[in-house]
Amino acid sequence: MFDAYGTLYDVYSVAARCESCWPGKGAQLSQLWRAKQLEYTWQRSLMQRYVPFSTVTREALAYSCEALKLELSVAQMEGLMGEYLNLALYPDVTRTLAKLKPPKAILSNGSPDMLLPLVKNSGLELDAVISVDALKIFKPAPQVYQLAVDKLQTKNIGFVSSNCWDALGAKSYGFEVYWINRGNAPVDRLGFKPDRILKSLDEILQ
Amino acid sequence: MFDAYGTLYDVYSVAARCESCWPGKGAQLSQLWRAKQLEYTWQRSLMQRYVPFSTVTREALAYSCEALKLELSVAQMEGLMGEYLNLALYPDVTRTLAKLKPPKAILSNGSPDMLLPLVKNSGLELDAVISVDALKIFKPAPQVYQLAVDKLQTKNIGFVSSNCWDALGAKSYGFEVYWINRGNAPVDRLGFKPDRILKSLDEILQ
Repeated sequence: MFDAYGTLYDVYSVAARCESCWPGKGAQLSQLWRAKQLEYTWQRSLMQRYVPFSTVTREALAYSCEALKLELSVAQMEGLMGEYLNLALYPDVTRTLAKLKPPKAILSNGSPDMLLPLVKNSGLELDAVISVDALKIFKPAPQVYQLAVDKLQTKNIGFVSSNCWDALGAKSYGFEVYWINRGNAPVDRLGFKPDRILKSLDEILQ
Repeated sequence: MFDAYGTLYDVYSVAARCESCWPGKGAQLSQLWRAKQLEYTWQRSLMQRYVPFSTVTREALAYSCEALKLELSVAQMEGLMGEYLNLALYPDVTRTLAKLKPPKAILSNGSPDMLLPLVKNSGLELDAVISVDALKIFKPAPQVYQLAVDKLQTKNIGFVSSNCWDALGAKSYGFEVYWINRGNAPVDRLGFKPDRILKSLDEILQ
């Protein structure tokens, strides 16, 4: 079971498009956008005011542009949101997944309007693409990881994420977890440890 | 009803002590520490793995020092945690609260081990100091704002916070909210607006 954004799909192209819209501000904007996107998923989940990830993502972009005093046109927002439908796979994804036995699946915060076109456009072949949207709550709520159990009809799930808090949410729920730590970050202090810390996805084959 | 950290109490002295421990790194460390402190409150709430705010705060500091490659001794951690017990009040707090009719209260994420000594040391006189600790969940969960209603035995509550997401959580619950926007930040996009946006606390008297 794989997380999508940042784990299978490289979100770098979003930063590159930010840079082309606002030269010199791309890195700062894309970092703030990502930070607010995640904050809003957690805050809205706690407020019991779920909206789809596509809405959260637009709202986080609008906030971030205002905070950085960047004017955002509708065309720019649509262009940036469009990048999310055509993200590149990390280079090791296709060959690694080809060597794993089914079932292989995605468990993502992404709403179906973002996630399904992305998976289709990337050509990735999976047995299930599971969105939190059915539950109206975001990761790391335990219901999300339970949804994967319900959909795959097994508790014997290995969960792979590049987001440490997501891996630890899955660990807290009861999965065996593999944290892909591409950036050499510390382990988050949330009361759990990943079962394995890997530098890249293909290390899961070992 | 007032939020505590950043609203009544100025957390700047924490940043100053970070700077004295690690010259040149104080601003970066205190920003990361605060960001992780909040993230951990939201993530642990969603994971249903509550620990007291004092523990979250220590864990966020340990993470942040590791991320910035700063060595953290036990004495340094105790010194920094000690700052939280002796924060200064913003200059307009005492005179503003003196002009408001009772009941006046705090509603805070802070656990009693942090919050009660802080209020006592600052000499602030309040009718109630309410901690989320009784509920084992952090803001902006609606149960937290409900707790204030239960404790004060009224729904007619005006809530004041410098944290926009906290003000909007209270608004979503049903309070009249006053967002103290000292830093001229944008309004968070969480589906609600504050009833009033103020530059400083004493504007609530108007």
